[in-house]
Amino acid sequence: MEEAAHPYVPKDLKLPGYVPISMSMSSILSVYLASSLFVASLVWFLFGRKKLKLDKLLMCWWAFTGLTHLVLEGYFVFSPEFFNDNTSCYLAEVWKEYSKGDSRYAGRDSAVIAVEGITAVIEGPASLLSVYAIAKGKSYSYVLQLAISLGQLYGCLVYFITAFLEGDNFATSSFYYYSYYIGANGWWVLIPLLISYRSWNKICEAAANGVETKMKKKIR
Amino acid sequence: MEEAAHPYVPKDLKLPGYVPISMSMSSILSVYLASSLFVASLVWFLFGRKKLKLDKLLMCWWAFTGLTHLVLEGYFVFSPEFFNDNTSCYLAEVWKEYSKGDSRYAGRDSAVIAVEGITAVIEGPASLLSVYAIAKGKSYSYVLQLAISLGQLYGCLVYFITAFLEGDNFATSSFYYYSYYIGANGWWVLIPLLISYRSWNKICEAAANGVETKMKKKIR
Repeated sequence: MEEAAHPYVPKDLKLPGYVPISMSMSSILSVYLASSLFVASLVWFLFGRKKLKLDKLLMCWWAFTGLTHLVLEGYFVFSPEFFNDNTSCYLAEVWKEYSKGDSRYAGRDSAVIAVEGITAVIEGPASLLSVYAIAKGKSYSYVLQLAISLGQLYGCLVYFITAFLEGDNFATSSFYYYSYYIGANGWWVLIPLLISYRSWNKICEAAANGVETKMKKKIR
Repeated sequence: MEEAAHPYVPKDLKLPGYVPISMSMSSILSVYLASSLFVASLVWFLFGRKKLKLDKLLMCWWAFTGLTHLVLEGYFVFSPEFFNDNTSCYLAEVWKEYSKGDSRYAGRDSAVIAVEGITAVIEGPASLLSVYAIAKGKSYSYVLQLAISLGQLYGCLVYFITAFLEGDNFATSSFYYYSYYIGANGWWVLIPLLISYRSWNKICEAAANGVETKMKKKIR
């Protein structure tokens, strides 16, 4: 009789005191998209002057992903009972909605919390540091971007592998499976892959130039 | 009545068909230590000629950790029923013994398998590539070492955080807890931390020199 008091799969997931979502999917997504666009525009127009377009784009990405890690994922990690929230708090609504794509969020799966914890506490602040590092042309800019991107990729791997090993049956419907679980996370595979590739090459170039310079000095 | 047919904690862990360890702890450890020493000496004397001592030490570490990842951890990942092995296969004995420090290995915890899978399949071959990269002074040497070390650290974080979240009660006794779970894994925290720190600094130095060279060229 107690079963399915929530919309999530598996149906026998226990969520005592679950309070249903009060915001619509479109409102939740609109707020996220609008605030992300706001952050990106701010970075693009205020901090990105005299920068190459690609650097400006990267700064927008790091500001966006850093705030997503810190605010959204940080809230999830430290709010074990978000599904009981009855204040229509936006952050709780986000995770009630996302749990339709992966109920392990509502169910507090330990692998998900571990990955989200590392992402929120380490990668969030590090991503914001990347914005600063690119803006100021710091020497650690590429290695920092590489380290965070590899962390994001490692996190995604653990996230997808554990779901697969546990039966891959955590989505309310295939719509939520493909749009939230695959679609939303796909960006955090694709973009970190591209940034890792670029940063890796930039670092190797600098290292190769260093060896060249040393050899020239020796020949002189 | 079926409980405690195995030596692991928690006692209610189900391991149908469990075959007890046949090798002693000292034999298992001796084989591991002796073969590790053999690999390290081989690298030190054969491949490390004309190298600085620190580079030789690093090559020994990468050969040792790479083979541990590939052989020991690779066996674990792809042998879901190692606890049923009755052939006294050395690799099965290793994991039957190690499970006394963390029964999630015998219990096939999905977070452990995910981390071990990434470690065996990606970090194992990458570690062996590091031996080659250091030997040949490749330009990607430091960035490769950094990437693997950060991966090892991420893996350890997931490993320890998930155990903590699940009650941290997977060791047969505090002896096994501190010697296997904390002690053995501690090396894979300490050494990757040191290597990450060094590689990070080397990469930043090269990047800073690159910027300096470019500026000198501009001034000329």
